[in-house]
Amino acid sequence: MTLLDHEALEEIALGATVLGTGGGGDPTLGKLMAQQVVARHGPVQLLPLDEVPNDGWIIPTAMMGAPTVLVEKIPSGTEVLDAFKMLERRLQCRAVATVSAEAGGVNSMIPMVVAANLGVPIVDADGMGRAFPEIQMVTPTLHGVSATPMSLADEKGNQVLLETPDNFWTERLARAVTIQMGCSACIALYAMQGATAKKVLVPSTISLALDIIGTGRDVGVQCKISFQNENLVFWRDGQPEVTVPDLITVVDEQTGLPITTEALKYGLRVVVLGIPCHSQWRTPAGLALVGPRYFGYEIEYVPLENDERGTRNAE
Amino acid sequence: MTLLDHEALEEIALGATVLGTGGGGDPTLGKLMAQQVVARHGPVQLLPLDEVPNDGWIIPTAMMGAPTVLVEKIPSGTEVLDAFKMLERRLQCRAVATVSAEAGGVNSMIPMVVAANLGVPIVDADGMGRAFPEIQMVTPTLHGVSATPMSLADEKGNQVLLETPDNFWTERLARAVTIQMGCSACIALYAMQGATAKKVLVPSTISLALDIIGTGRDVGVQCKISFQNENLVFWRDGQPEVTVPDLITVVDEQTGLPITTEALKYGLRVVVLGIPCHSQWRTPAGLALVGPRYFGYEIEYVPLENDERGTRNAE
Repeated sequence: MTLLDHEALEEIALGATVLGTGGGGDPTLGKLMAQQVVARHGPVQLLPLDEVPNDGWIIPTAMMGAPTVLVEKIPSGTEVLDAFKMLERRLQCRAVATVSAEAGGVNSMIPMVVAANLGVPIVDADGMGRAFPEIQMVTPTLHGVSATPMSLADEKGNQVLLETPDNFWTERLARAVTIQMGCSACIALYAMQGATAKKVLVPSTISLALDIIGTGRDVGVQCKISFQNENLVFWRDGQPEVTVPDLITVVDEQTGLPITTEALKYGLRVVVLGIPCHSQWRTPAGLALVGPRYFGYEIEYVPLENDERGTRNAE
Repeated sequence: MTLLDHEALEEIALGATVLGTGGGGDPTLGKLMAQQVVARHGPVQLLPLDEVPNDGWIIPTAMMGAPTVLVEKIPSGTEVLDAFKMLERRLQCRAVATVSAEAGGVNSMIPMVVAANLGVPIVDADGMGRAFPEIQMVTPTLHGVSATPMSLADEKGNQVLLETPDNFWTERLARAVTIQMGCSACIALYAMQGATAKKVLVPSTISLALDIIGTGRDVGVQCKISFQNENLVFWRDGQPEVTVPDLITVVDEQTGLPITTEALKYGLRVVVLGIPCHSQWRTPAGLALVGPRYFGYEIEYVPLENDERGTRNAE
């Protein structure tokens, strides 16, 4: 049994921020929230995806909204418990575990807050293998899993339950509610049983985040990156070289630490990493959901490792 | 036992539109929706407020959104049943009756659709004794009754449940959801037991609406009326003469039928009626919630029958 302690949380937050490709929230904020809860309640148990009971319910948890808002409007820690419990009441079940909806500095840590508080494990998986800006952009959508019932909660005591005919409507209604809640909210959604989770989630995301810090570097280049929360297209001399759903991550040249889009600024010396996305995103359905055209770029997706449009080894 | 049939529904829709003071929806649309359901399921039983069992739950139902949208986006009739049943599930109860949240051409009829479909009576009462544009603007708010749990449903199958710390937050979240649902939604809210209802609702609103058609007229005047859904201030020569929460209703000079704000147009010959509001609205708490200052008018409220600012008998 793997237990995630104070140090592991820091490494996971940083590793998940690499996978977050600029989105998914600030790792310092994320790790502090989780470390505070673990200090009080003890370490979190990491549950391999294939060990989740087939008939056990797991409830993914996350923050939704603007990362820049979170810097000033820090969660109290109770909102996500409200959201989690509201969904348990709706499903009339006790969840056997929580799990990350997306990789990212905050969204890898929110489920840790739930896990430590309620004494349930976190599943070693997530719903993207990276971060994306909209609710329907998860691998469960590719398998027809409904985002609803979905709950949202804020620090003022507001709680909202959504039931929608498809995951695009979930995004639309949840976004409107999140804006009213102050542009950030805690959410629980895509509840599913273990048998489903094994088919539809991206496995081993937390382990991968743990391993990622300290590994592979590339030589820094000057480039342009288009983003919407997450980095979407890496351009060299006006030519696209890497696009969503492949991962584009900016790290500090000196420290190797990932830099989120809201933290990017003039004068930083950085290295840009391209990382292949999970194979589910490369299917026609995956590309329709989160390919470059969905985000308004008239670019054909070419897998990172096959691309010959640009020079692969950056100078 | 009073049964409300095809003809009674038409009279109530028109009478309630007088009380709606320009808001609360179009009576033709409202009556057609209710008459269609009554033709299929039979007449609706009208239950006097003092005959509601003290421990029985009643669930008010209504439309929320823009009356002008309703003219093109006509409800299918199932949305309000979805909203009603969602609230029953949340409360784990079977409601003994529904009731109008506000008087108005549509909002007196929506509960009739529920009552006829589900075979429950409608209580002879409402939450305003008139119409108002925002959710917290009901007499139950004056008594500390919570608007939530509140449900919203649309024709696409979306269902939303709200739990909020106060009725102003309910308005804010419900408004954002309604906009996403297409600017109109069916709602169920302010669920309460009979003992509470007898203290906090405005009694006999449906009977009053039934009696209102064909009664008192005044001589038509040229005037200015400020409105926000409902008519708010009646001005003569730049001087306010009647203000919210008193009722200001425009009726056709020839037919005596009420004219909603969205139906007002150049060339109509009209009579403006001033009607005293329910006494609960004249308390300090009532005026803080729905007095002229809340709507941005720096005018002291003077009860209609005491006002000496203008000429009472219009020419």
